Amino acid sequence: MTLLLAIESGGDNWSTERWRSHFADALPGRRIVVHGADAYRPGDVRFAAVWKPPHGLLATLPRLEVMFNLGAGVDALLADLSLPAVPLVRVINADLAQRMTEYVTLHVLLHHRRLPTLIHAQSLCQWAPKTQWAASAVRVGILGFGALGQDAGEVLVRLGFKVAGFTRSPKYDASRPPDGIEMFAGAARLPAFLARTDILVVLTPLTSETRGMLDRRLFSQLARDGVLGAPVLINAGRGGLQVEADILACLDDGTLGAASLDVFEREPLPVDSPLWTHPNVIVTPHNAADSDPASIALDIAGQIIDYERGGKLQHTVQRELGY
Amino acid sequence: MTLLLAIESGGDNWSTERWRSHFADALPGRRIVVHGADAYRPGDVRFAAVWKPPHGLLATLPRLEVMFNLGAGVDALLADLSLPAVPLVRVINADLAQRMTEYVTLHVLLHHRRLPTLIHAQSLCQWAPKTQWAASAVRVGILGFGALGQDAGEVLVRLGFKVAGFTRSPKYDASRPPDGIEMFAGAARLPAFLARTDILVVLTPLTSETRGMLDRRLFSQLARDGVLGAPVLINAGRGGLQVEADILACLDDGTLGAASLDVFEREPLPVDSPLWTHPNVIVTPHNAADSDPASIALDIAGQIIDYERGGKLQHTVQRELGY
Repeated sequence: MTLLLAIESGGDNWSTERWRSHFADALPGRRIVVHGADAYRPGDVRFAAVWKPPHGLLATLPRLEVMFNLGAGVDALLADLSLPAVPLVRVINADLAQRMTEYVTLHVLLHHRRLPTLIHAQSLCQWAPKTQWAASAVRVGILGFGALGQDAGEVLVRLGFKVAGFTRSPKYDASRPPDGIEMFAGAARLPAFLARTDILVVLTPLTSETRGMLDRRLFSQLARDGVLGAPVLINAGRGGLQVEADILACLDDGTLGAASLDVFEREPLPVDSPLWTHPNVIVTPHNAADSDPASIALDIAGQIIDYERGGKLQHTVQRELGY
Repeated sequence: MTLLLAIESGGDNWSTERWRSHFADALPGRRIVVHGADAYRPGDVRFAAVWKPPHGLLATLPRLEVMFNLGAGVDALLADLSLPAVPLVRVINADLAQRMTEYVTLHVLLHHRRLPTLIHAQSLCQWAPKTQWAASAVRVGILGFGALGQDAGEVLVRLGFKVAGFTRSPKYDASRPPDGIEMFAGAARLPAFLARTDILVVLTPLTSETRGMLDRRLFSQLARDGVLGAPVLINAGRGGLQVEADILACLDDGTLGAASLDVFEREPLPVDSPLWTHPNVIVTPHNAADSDPASIALDIAGQIIDYERGGKLQHTVQRELGY
């Protein structure tokens, strides 16, 4: 078999040669070719591991059996209308979940513990202790409760927060809800989920249904009676979910109290975006959960070997849902 | 019986009347008197609940049976050389542990995830993703591994960090080390503990042995081969443990990379301290784990009721150790 790597360049983590080396280690004896660097016959390629490949490329491979996306989000890939109708696998592994959980835990604690206020006091050389509520007084809501949301939710429960999860199409076993987490499943439950949420953590995939859902209408439905004074938004999902003009206006009129944003409508965030300098916004450069090439290559290699022995693929994408 | 409250005033959390009300709720029908506000006969007092009471006060109570300290640290109380030789209980409850775990988790993640660098980049409107190591590449060491250290250690293990604990006098059952945490017990093991530590979390009590231990000599023994580039200090214990001149000098010559400090040699931290403005220091105003009066009053009331029925007191202080 031949494994084709087609990876958008840019960013030290996305160096194609680094990926090639990790796949070579994980799949000894297999032929691995890199699009744009190596010559190969399209008819030889049975597997493709890709990140934002050129549109149309995958359609040129007549004997392609499985496509592996080198990350959890497949919105960029699904925008290729010529994508072949073979199984598409997205990577969700323990390393990715752990990194996302770090990001979510850090930013929830940071707002809960009033760190921006304390850092501002420090800049004025002011010793100004503030009332600090217990975690049990703060309600965190995880919008998009899949494998990543569940992992982060477990840590937030352990820290004492009141945690809820929202999922549009329940994949979890509803008869066995996750320990300590209140589940809201199905679009009709979204208002109730928002109404009990002080800190909204967004991990939902970008689909035609979710594009632009983080707007004034949604922010206005968040809890107004929380100890933090006003709700907090943490978006570590996709920039296309959010309406940045609404985030800014809602921060300015108090509909939102603060935001941590890792993703943006346009990335890199344009230098003239008012988000950079807004006092209640923390901007991070889409690095909430950088994929670790070694661990992802191992994961995909394991799936290829298992598939060839007749095993079932894990984390296949349901195209009609978009994730 | 009479319960005497003697509490240093200052800070909204330490309002004596708030404490009185919580103790009245927790001990209905008991007589509760406040030093400095109520008249009482010293011979009637059997229990005292105190925070930094005037030196000599407790020695005037001839029938005192138990002293309860309204916090985990008893260094201020033990400095009263006239302290009666009756049992002294310090408060360590789930609320206190949870708050300290929040602080430790937040500040470990903050340094691990390079938040100061990202916030600086934001202030320059710069999109500048940095290599982000997995938590498993970072070694956290908890100096002072009691009930608080164990709770924080569990969360850090769950997040994927390599965690070790150091305790001078092992109270944990050495035959059953805490899950996933490497234990170093006894002073002779301190160098080995420091040599494997990238982020040093300090929760140790202030005693004659530990005063000033956080000095250049100790910082020089921390790991020099960590992925963070230089070791990080997080002190949420007591200010008397640290030599601030050494912290500043070690930050400036690279022996330390950064520090989060919640406690200081003098509190409030004097406005002319260089710690306020040092670019690699985060100053918080001794609020890592503010005691919650309601939960502490309940805890002490439970101990009093249990003691009167012949039960054993919990968390009694060993005076010769100082904690």
